[in-house]
Amino acid sequence: MGIEDFISSEDDRLDKLLKFTAEIDKMTSVLRRTVLLDKSRRENDAEHSWHIAVMALMFEEYYDGKVDIGRAVSMCVVHDLVEIYAGDTFAFDKKGNIDKNERESKAADMLFSQLPEDIGSMIRSLWEEFDAMETDDAIYAACMDRIQPLLHNTLTDGHTWVLGNATREDIEKREEPVREHMPKVYEWIERNIENGINKGWIAG
Amino acid sequence: MGIEDFISSEDDRLDKLLKFTAEIDKMTSVLRRTVLLDKSRRENDAEHSWHIAVMALMFEEYYDGKVDIGRAVSMCVVHDLVEIYAGDTFAFDKKGNIDKNERESKAADMLFSQLPEDIGSMIRSLWEEFDAMETDDAIYAACMDRIQPLLHNTLTDGHTWVLGNATREDIEKREEPVREHMPKVYEWIERNIENGINKGWIAG
Repeated sequence: MGIEDFISSEDDRLDKLLKFTAEIDKMTSVLRRTVLLDKSRRENDAEHSWHIAVMALMFEEYYDGKVDIGRAVSMCVVHDLVEIYAGDTFAFDKKGNIDKNERESKAADMLFSQLPEDIGSMIRSLWEEFDAMETDDAIYAACMDRIQPLLHNTLTDGHTWVLGNATREDIEKREEPVREHMPKVYEWIERNIENGINKGWIAG
Repeated sequence: MGIEDFISSEDDRLDKLLKFTAEIDKMTSVLRRTVLLDKSRRENDAEHSWHIAVMALMFEEYYDGKVDIGRAVSMCVVHDLVEIYAGDTFAFDKKGNIDKNERESKAADMLFSQLPEDIGSMIRSLWEEFDAMETDDAIYAACMDRIQPLLHNTLTDGHTWVLGNATREDIEKREEPVREHMPKVYEWIERNIENGINKGWIAG
């Protein structure tokens, strides 16, 4: 990244915003385990974040609480930013998930301190709210983050389920926010899990 | 895309939402002329849409009007959806831009009719509002869509400027919403244009 070519704006705040914009381009090379639906390659964090953000505009009627859609969409686009430094932690990697919070918290310090303090705090708060999954906006956004990979697995021969030797229990645990708050969507998820077991993609 | 593996939800509306979610995964293969900052490959529409959506969370203070940030972020994530069928039109391709509106309007008919009518209309409206650039939310989102490629050009040896034989006039025209509504950012843009001319990336 030719940051040496960066043109200073003569405004320190604006420089920080522009440099941060350049820095987060790295999300395009944080690879997830999920493959694109055409199976051509692994999906990256920028693509995944975008995908669930569009979903957040669409699924509101299936959620059992009141959601501020603009905030949920905003959470979706920033929810994986810390992975620029912490890397993507595979959902079905039990070891990787043990120190995930610690790694991501350090990454957040490194990342958000590059922004003007108020803007950094604002984006960090959105990420922390998403991660804590206690508000409706966050739970709804988290549901999008659970439904999208499941749809991908269904349409790509259970790709990450097979890769992670995922069991029914692992997937049910992962999809819990959907079971609790989007029951109609969860019915569809249950059928997908059954289908995955029948096809041998999921350890029964 | 193994849509033949799609599991029906027994709910026609929900099926439409899920199938649309799968369909828009194709945004990951709509390639732009812009390259990623590491120059490894061309940026795709999913990545670009995500990138400007995050920017929309950050640059509000530099805009001269009142913006609903959640709506602006939402516009950013849907603003290029029609390119799934219409393809990306290179900003500096004068011929391609002549029939852009017609191609995109047909693409929008094809795309949004796959959604339940109310949801399709809502997303189409967001896209149309973005494209018309008449409201503050839309102008602000459009500014993000102008600043991001310019930053990319600065950091990648003027990649799309060189590719499109862009002149100072072409770029100034493209950056007009920023000049009109984000004057402080436009000062930085002007210096980037000067720099591009000095480096031979822009036809002077």
